Amino acid sequence: MKRNFAVYAKDFEDVLLDNFVPFWTKFSPDPVYGGYLCGFMRDGELFHEDKSVWQQGRSLWMFSKLYNEFGGNPEWLDAAKCGYDFINKYCFAESGHMYFRLTRDGRPLVERRYYFSEAFAVMGYVEYYKATGLAEAKERAVKLFDKMIYYFTTPGVFAPKVNPETRKNRGHSIIMIMMNVAQCVREIEADPKYDELITKCLDTIMNVFVKPEEKALFETVGENGERLNSPEGRLINPGHSMETAWFMMREAIHRKDKAIMECAMQVVLWSLERGWDNEQGGIFYFLDVENKPVTSLEWDMKLFWPHCEAMIALAYSYWYTKEEIYMEWFDKIKEYVWAHFPDEGHPEWFGHLHRDGTPINYIKGSDWKGPFHNVRAYMVLTQILKAIDENKDLGF
Amino acid sequence: MKRNFAVYAKDFEDVLLDNFVPFWTKFSPDPVYGGYLCGFMRDGELFHEDKSVWQQGRSLWMFSKLYNEFGGNPEWLDAAKCGYDFINKYCFAESGHMYFRLTRDGRPLVERRYYFSEAFAVMGYVEYYKATGLAEAKERAVKLFDKMIYYFTTPGVFAPKVNPETRKNRGHSIIMIMMNVAQCVREIEADPKYDELITKCLDTIMNVFVKPEEKALFETVGENGERLNSPEGRLINPGHSMETAWFMMREAIHRKDKAIMECAMQVVLWSLERGWDNEQGGIFYFLDVENKPVTSLEWDMKLFWPHCEAMIALAYSYWYTKEEIYMEWFDKIKEYVWAHFPDEGHPEWFGHLHRDGTPINYIKGSDWKGPFHNVRAYMVLTQILKAIDENKDLGF
Repeated sequence: MKRNFAVYAKDFEDVLLDNFVPFWTKFSPDPVYGGYLCGFMRDGELFHEDKSVWQQGRSLWMFSKLYNEFGGNPEWLDAAKCGYDFINKYCFAESGHMYFRLTRDGRPLVERRYYFSEAFAVMGYVEYYKATGLAEAKERAVKLFDKMIYYFTTPGVFAPKVNPETRKNRGHSIIMIMMNVAQCVREIEADPKYDELITKCLDTIMNVFVKPEEKALFETVGENGERLNSPEGRLINPGHSMETAWFMMREAIHRKDKAIMECAMQVVLWSLERGWDNEQGGIFYFLDVENKPVTSLEWDMKLFWPHCEAMIALAYSYWYTKEEIYMEWFDKIKEYVWAHFPDEGHPEWFGHLHRDGTPINYIKGSDWKGPFHNVRAYMVLTQILKAIDENKDLGF
Repeated sequence: MKRNFAVYAKDFEDVLLDNFVPFWTKFSPDPVYGGYLCGFMRDGELFHEDKSVWQQGRSLWMFSKLYNEFGGNPEWLDAAKCGYDFINKYCFAESGHMYFRLTRDGRPLVERRYYFSEAFAVMGYVEYYKATGLAEAKERAVKLFDKMIYYFTTPGVFAPKVNPETRKNRGHSIIMIMMNVAQCVREIEADPKYDELITKCLDTIMNVFVKPEEKALFETVGENGERLNSPEGRLINPGHSMETAWFMMREAIHRKDKAIMECAMQVVLWSLERGWDNEQGGIFYFLDVENKPVTSLEWDMKLFWPHCEAMIALAYSYWYTKEEIYMEWFDKIKEYVWAHFPDEGHPEWFGHLHRDGTPINYIKGSDWKGPFHNVRAYMVLTQILKAIDENKDLGF
């Protein structure tokens, strides 16, 4: 089938620049206290004021990235500075660990036992450094990622949720995020330790979490990498798997390594074969690899972000192979997305649908739904689809 | 309208004794390690082995209560003993605080910063003491509840989730559970401190969490009882409100106090007027008092337990007033329940439905869905409906 990739690219770029970005630029930077507001109803009205620290880092990343790669609008740089200052001033506990949630004026509410707040802040610092050349931003990125590496390699810094004397399971999330953040920091700091860390994460994902005999990337495995016969051990998160897959594809391109690319493309096809709802369309949120019950009541919801991750992974796969199967899936998902997520007559798109595709709520922003998966995907897709249209070579 | 309450009572008793109780008696007691298994699929097959400590106490309570009030079947007493021994042996940390989740063989997995595990264990001990006369069981109930009172009245024993220097909100759940457990312990131990505690909880619920100007019982209020303008401050949980309401009604009956009864009945009508889904039937899980978005994606699901609590509260209300409005609501809910929750051709009932009434999963048991709300409701409803049929006087 002959496709016009310039038209595809324009579809994504129009939504990005005419809908998503104006929404977040208008409503998110807090004119009173700095940082970014998060809780938005249908037309941008605020329904809560507390600030998610994840969203502070993610928004800093997004505004800086837009400035760097989509035309250098000074409004975006102002919006980025607004978050950079707030993060530095309010988001760190005395221990150097980052909070999870703050009041609007920056007082600490919740500190959790994880370091995902750090991950998004590092990503934000990296892009902000690229936008400004500010040495301090680079230093913050490098030092904060060093702290993440310390947390990652030092058991017991945070009390684990599950008693480690009884059970020491391993989770996919933290490995995926360490890999992705290392990829970001590497762009501004040449140090072989980043490549070493990425190699270690890749090996773990490909040899421990990816299990070809079950055609799945698992979220949780046992201490020795074994498949667990429990709800968490059987859990598949197709959107998460495809997000990891395109981080792997970026690494495959960087290293010109076909084996990584092939493994990642396989994960994408498995995830869609299992994760696509053949009855009502869309990608399920969670599945059990043996089709046993998933304890999360949200399992069959259609969330916006898995569809974002899937389209990125499919676009890379097509770029690399030019095989029709990837664009067939891409078209199917894009059609579902355009039919169900836009909120006719209102800005931004729905984030959460019932299994049948009807919206669960009219939330445009929350602690979880911010300018991240959506804006990131529509930026990356605009770029990839243009590159395909221009016959750019992937380089391997 | 003329109703045959003996027929109503039999409807509930039949489901209780021919469906729910045989399911739990057959599948739940663990023949290998003692205690109760929790994770059941559609026909009783196990899908996970870890044990919820909540469900240990709740099941002990249920089997003992059945033995005490539904015919003294020795199989139920055996099932109760199986949990009593397991709880005593495995469910307590060295500090005396109870765990939240264990492996099947009793090794600790998760300990949380709350004391709801204790609440259900105390309730279980009380009923087990009534069933057996075992002095040790009574002593355990009294001592463990004393520990709960210590936790309840001593700030900072457990690190709060939200930084108390920034925000000191007050939650409805713990006050409701302290009141209910005190009502249980009072049945086996005469000590005025229980009445004092119940009075304090009642006053707080009626004067702080119930806000007549908004016709709602709130889940969370500010440090000084003020209504908060935030998602948690606007949150209404209609099922939870009606559960508290019937705990209040039990106290009203115990004290022959009409003011408590009137307040509780008002809460029930408010909860149903707000909580009933006029479009698709059933009771919503969560609502925002201003109809702003609820951040929980499960907000519009129809769960089994709120319908259980509603029917109990309505049966008490009708018994007290003989007013038609309560039985009209009761019939509406019973009809919805019978039309949507039974799983034709399979034991036990569904626990979780989509907004449209279709099942979300086929789970019959989990960490959250055990033999508690359902079995308790169908026991209590059998008893109340029989009492109404026999024209028994409520005594005030």
